[in-house]
Amino acid sequence: MHGKKTDLASKKCGIARSLNVIGDWWTLLIVRDAFNGRRRFNEFQKNLGMAKNILSSRLKKLVEEGVFSVVEDDGSGSGHNYVLTPKGEELYLVLVALWQWGENNCKEAGDLDHEMVDAKTARVLPQLKLLAHDGRELGPREFKMKAI
Amino acid sequence: MHGKKTDLASKKCGIARSLNVIGDWWTLLIVRDAFNGRRRFNEFQKNLGMAKNILSSRLKKLVEEGVFSVVEDDGSGSGHNYVLTPKGEELYLVLVALWQWGENNCKEAGDLDHEMVDAKTARVLPQLKLLAHDGRELGPREFKMKAI
Repeated sequence: MHGKKTDLASKKCGIARSLNVIGDWWTLLIVRDAFNGRRRFNEFQKNLGMAKNILSSRLKKLVEEGVFSVVEDDGSGSGHNYVLTPKGEELYLVLVALWQWGENNCKEAGDLDHEMVDAKTARVLPQLKLLAHDGRELGPREFKMKAI
Repeated sequence: MHGKKTDLASKKCGIARSLNVIGDWWTLLIVRDAFNGRRRFNEFQKNLGMAKNILSSRLKKLVEEGVFSVVEDDGSGSGHNYVLTPKGEELYLVLVALWQWGENNCKEAGDLDHEMVDAKTARVLPQLKLLAHDGRELGPREFKMKAI
């Protein structure tokens, strides 16, 4: 599709490493759906409208990379459940950052049909903030990438 | 490459909308390089090792979507500079979230050659945290997507 991208995995950059695992539209939408309670191939397939062969290859990669684990149905043998691992669950901050960027930049008012809320209070999540060690909020020009 | 994906732009989900604009490996790596001070086609191309036609189409889309603006060199006429707009700069939280996920999950110790630091103090950025309105830190199972 993009050709082989093994080069990204070997880059010494955390962003490139991450994108090697989850840098694909479908991949993050599968992770989103898993956060929304979907666990089965057919549930993902139906909700995302993905071609089965693409979904299958994405799930396979995500299992290999340790983002999902496969949990068999108890006894019934009727199929797999794809469940986020702790590593997969840690992607929630990427999802929230993407969601908020999309909300702030890619819509007209009233254009989205869901919002991200605090599960306990049902209040809309506050904007994600990047705080320095001393509590200052850091803006887009207040961080940098530094050679180690 | 993925086929036409105009469907994603019409989805009423902030994540899908975002991915429609920046859900592509190369795209986020171009944005990363822009944060690192690169502005010219040749600088991006050299650093990323991308095919010129792919870089050209990505930059074109990013300009159309308002993530980059094109700034001409003063007088010289020797070329364009691609500069992040405020919308593009707001992607920094997506980059930080990806970086930290990659650092925490996709490397061995000592495996990366850069770190993300506070520009003022040069200290490594603290982990991004999702805080509720009352200041509680929210974990991966403490938010949900709710129909509006």
